[in-house]
Amino acid sequence: MRTTPLFARLATALASGLLLATASQASATGLSPASLAAAVELRERASGDGTAYALIESLTTEIGPRLPGSEADARAVAWAKARFEALGYDKVWTEPVTFPKWERRSEHAAVVGVHAQPLVITALGGSPGGEVTAELVRFDSLAALEAADPATLRGKLAFVDVPMARSRDGSGYGAAGPVRSRGPSIAARKGASGYLMRSIGTSPHRVANTGITRFDAGVTPIPSAAMSLPDADQLTRLLQRGPVQVRLALDVGWNGEYTSQNVIAELTGREAPDEIVLIAGHLDSWDLGTGAVDDASGVGITMAAGHLIAQLPQRPRRTVRVVAFANEEQGLIGARAYADAYGGPDVIARHVIGAESDFGAGRIYGFNTSAPSGERATSDAIAEVLRPLGIDYLQDKGSPGPDISPLAAKGGAWGWLGQDGTDYFDLHHNADDTLDKVDPDAVAQNTAAYAVFAWLAAEADGGFGSAPKSVP
Amino acid sequence: MRTTPLFARLATALASGLLLATASQASATGLSPASLAAAVELRERASGDGTAYALIESLTTEIGPRLPGSEADARAVAWAKARFEALGYDKVWTEPVTFPKWERRSEHAAVVGVHAQPLVITALGGSPGGEVTAELVRFDSLAALEAADPATLRGKLAFVDVPMARSRDGSGYGAAGPVRSRGPSIAARKGASGYLMRSIGTSPHRVANTGITRFDAGVTPIPSAAMSLPDADQLTRLLQRGPVQVRLALDVGWNGEYTSQNVIAELTGREAPDEIVLIAGHLDSWDLGTGAVDDASGVGITMAAGHLIAQLPQRPRRTVRVVAFANEEQGLIGARAYADAYGGPDVIARHVIGAESDFGAGRIYGFNTSAPSGERATSDAIAEVLRPLGIDYLQDKGSPGPDISPLAAKGGAWGWLGQDGTDYFDLHHNADDTLDKVDPDAVAQNTAAYAVFAWLAAEADGGFGSAPKSVP
Repeated sequence: MRTTPLFARLATALASGLLLATASQASATGLSPASLAAAVELRERASGDGTAYALIESLTTEIGPRLPGSEADARAVAWAKARFEALGYDKVWTEPVTFPKWERRSEHAAVVGVHAQPLVITALGGSPGGEVTAELVRFDSLAALEAADPATLRGKLAFVDVPMARSRDGSGYGAAGPVRSRGPSIAARKGASGYLMRSIGTSPHRVANTGITRFDAGVTPIPSAAMSLPDADQLTRLLQRGPVQVRLALDVGWNGEYTSQNVIAELTGREAPDEIVLIAGHLDSWDLGTGAVDDASGVGITMAAGHLIAQLPQRPRRTVRVVAFANEEQGLIGARAYADAYGGPDVIARHVIGAESDFGAGRIYGFNTSAPSGERATSDAIAEVLRPLGIDYLQDKGSPGPDISPLAAKGGAWGWLGQDGTDYFDLHHNADDTLDKVDPDAVAQNTAAYAVFAWLAAEADGGFGSAPKSVP
Repeated sequence: MRTTPLFARLATALASGLLLATASQASATGLSPASLAAAVELRERASGDGTAYALIESLTTEIGPRLPGSEADARAVAWAKARFEALGYDKVWTEPVTFPKWERRSEHAAVVGVHAQPLVITALGGSPGGEVTAELVRFDSLAALEAADPATLRGKLAFVDVPMARSRDGSGYGAAGPVRSRGPSIAARKGASGYLMRSIGTSPHRVANTGITRFDAGVTPIPSAAMSLPDADQLTRLLQRGPVQVRLALDVGWNGEYTSQNVIAELTGREAPDEIVLIAGHLDSWDLGTGAVDDASGVGITMAAGHLIAQLPQRPRRTVRVVAFANEEQGLIGARAYADAYGGPDVIARHVIGAESDFGAGRIYGFNTSAPSGERATSDAIAEVLRPLGIDYLQDKGSPGPDISPLAAKGGAWGWLGQDGTDYFDLHHNADDTLDKVDPDAVAQNTAAYAVFAWLAAEADGGFGSAPKSVP
């Protein structure tokens, strides 16, 4: 839908003084008053737009959970392609991504013996199947597990019980992450017969959080699972009373290969079509919830942001590319394929900047880019247009989103639109990641921020410092 | 443990003016100043006492879920007997209660077809096993199901989707209850092949609420289950897009008989041992959580209240009896056996009053009894001692607790110590009913209230109107 012609709106905005501050920066960025006016217009329109939420509703409802390699994976790819096509993008295509397929068929755990009772657990992605009944040995840190005498662990179930701190920026995840990524290998190397961990998460409810683990080469993988926080506390209380035996029975495991697709769409730049501003989410999810905050929200937000830019009277100067990445959850597999294809030293500079929405559906509170000092004029201009959305310019914060990190490792610049993740780990990788946890107003605010960011980055003359990085 | 002699404490209390108001009522109730002083002392001591919480912790941790007829049922009976004995009661015994045993072995449901995805469901207690794959027919009220043309339901899965209102007094439960108790029979009579319902509950999390259902005589039972609220909303969204097929597979059902026990303990009255003041909880629970708020809390609160009374220098005038009832969840089976044994027209008047704690672990906000006008002096006196606990005397409110209702039907008086149930149906009958949801301070306040109530009811001369009721 076209509304008032852009330049009439610009004149009104200028008359109201709205753009005076930003217009004064135009010369340093190459951003014209019209480009800045369009950014303000985008921001206001997106803030009241329901496209992103409707996309999240559609993906989570119609496709449901999207475990990489499951039949829902293919349905999700078809969904994304059809949606991009319907949303006014100039080009839509897919690029294949092949990976080993991991399946979850059934999973059970229970305390056995005099305190017999079931436990709420879920297998870690990458766990082998198997059935183990053994005594628990509890560790309150990964360091304690690493320091354990193998003689005390041989044939036992290692139980690593490390709480995760709740925080706006998700910093507790980084600290707790190795319990899942490293713990199973450490326990297996010491001869443990299985691995149980307190979920990396903050939910007080009876939901267990999955997530990928990888076994080191040369280690025989052992059945590995996470339990809900109440279950971890229950086991700790039982252990205070004496030895505890647990039966862990997982019918899960790797099963062949699968080829999914990165789904890519773009608005072709009117002057510099080879220069790319990338915004992204990932299409896959874990299988316990419907992947609403991880990461249907990122897909919906970035798809809708591009759609809103597509409705402007003209295409941006550079190309805006939106990617729904395949299989982020099991190791950024789609993103690595993308970086292999587009991140070579001869072409990385063409990826002017990239940003991924993959931290839920909370409001964005902070913005930054990786642009080095001396090349921050465009970042400064974007920050100014974002500010009325309640977004602070936090020049010492941020990092590339997961699927941007392979490009960033090759020298690609990144943007950070930092979401409030205070509640994210109540939902992340567990059964509670469902649509009802998504706030439509927050999603609209996110969409506005991504639309402004992508539009201005694509309109600017200047860049953000993308350049080949020599990997040692 | 004995502390300062009672009468020394009384003198101090009288001197401080604390008892002047209550003492003025003593003549109307037969309650001596010493009895009232002991009530105040009990209240203050119980408010800082951790016995009840420790009992709740022990029962939920060591025994875990306590499905009637499961092996944990027998462990719970042994636990209760041993605890009563350790807590200073004068007599502890068990009375057998026999009932059909219902088992839950496995349960699965999933949308099949183009929107294939798993659902979080749980079988209703009393459901038969079976596997059904059929189209959903949704009803937004039980009345709509009752009005349905059987031709539209034959061979289909009835889906009754009625939200429950959150409230302090749990009034939403009464309104929603028939969806579980009546719905399956209505659907079966109309030829439905299975029954699915939105859980009777208020949790926005991915937990389904079980609970008993009974099929009418002459109806062939059909597999019946409840789903989490997010799942019910998901199905409603899918139905807006077209027909939805669901596969429901339940391996559950009735399997023989079991004999459990009511566990009974008493402090024998020093003057009128045959007159009984009854306080109670129920020992069984559903199997999904550990039955922390339903009803380990009631067991712990009443066990501890009696224990605190047992620590006073002398026994109460009447007998205080504490019962941990068997199998409340599947039809008040222990309570009915108890009422058959103790509620006959020749003996019902000996049960001076009864009160059950079976509405969670929230703070008590209201008190009342069924005493008729003209016989309310003792109720008035109890209310006055309860008031400093934040408990209002709500003379138009209340009802007998579930396990008191069979006695009440025979003419037994009841006391109501109304708990704040605002959050109760977030936990009731689902996997989230675990210890971490119990607030130790609220439990201590409950214990104080039950101790005061039982002590004063047992010390008073007057009664509450218990008398044989002619059942029409």
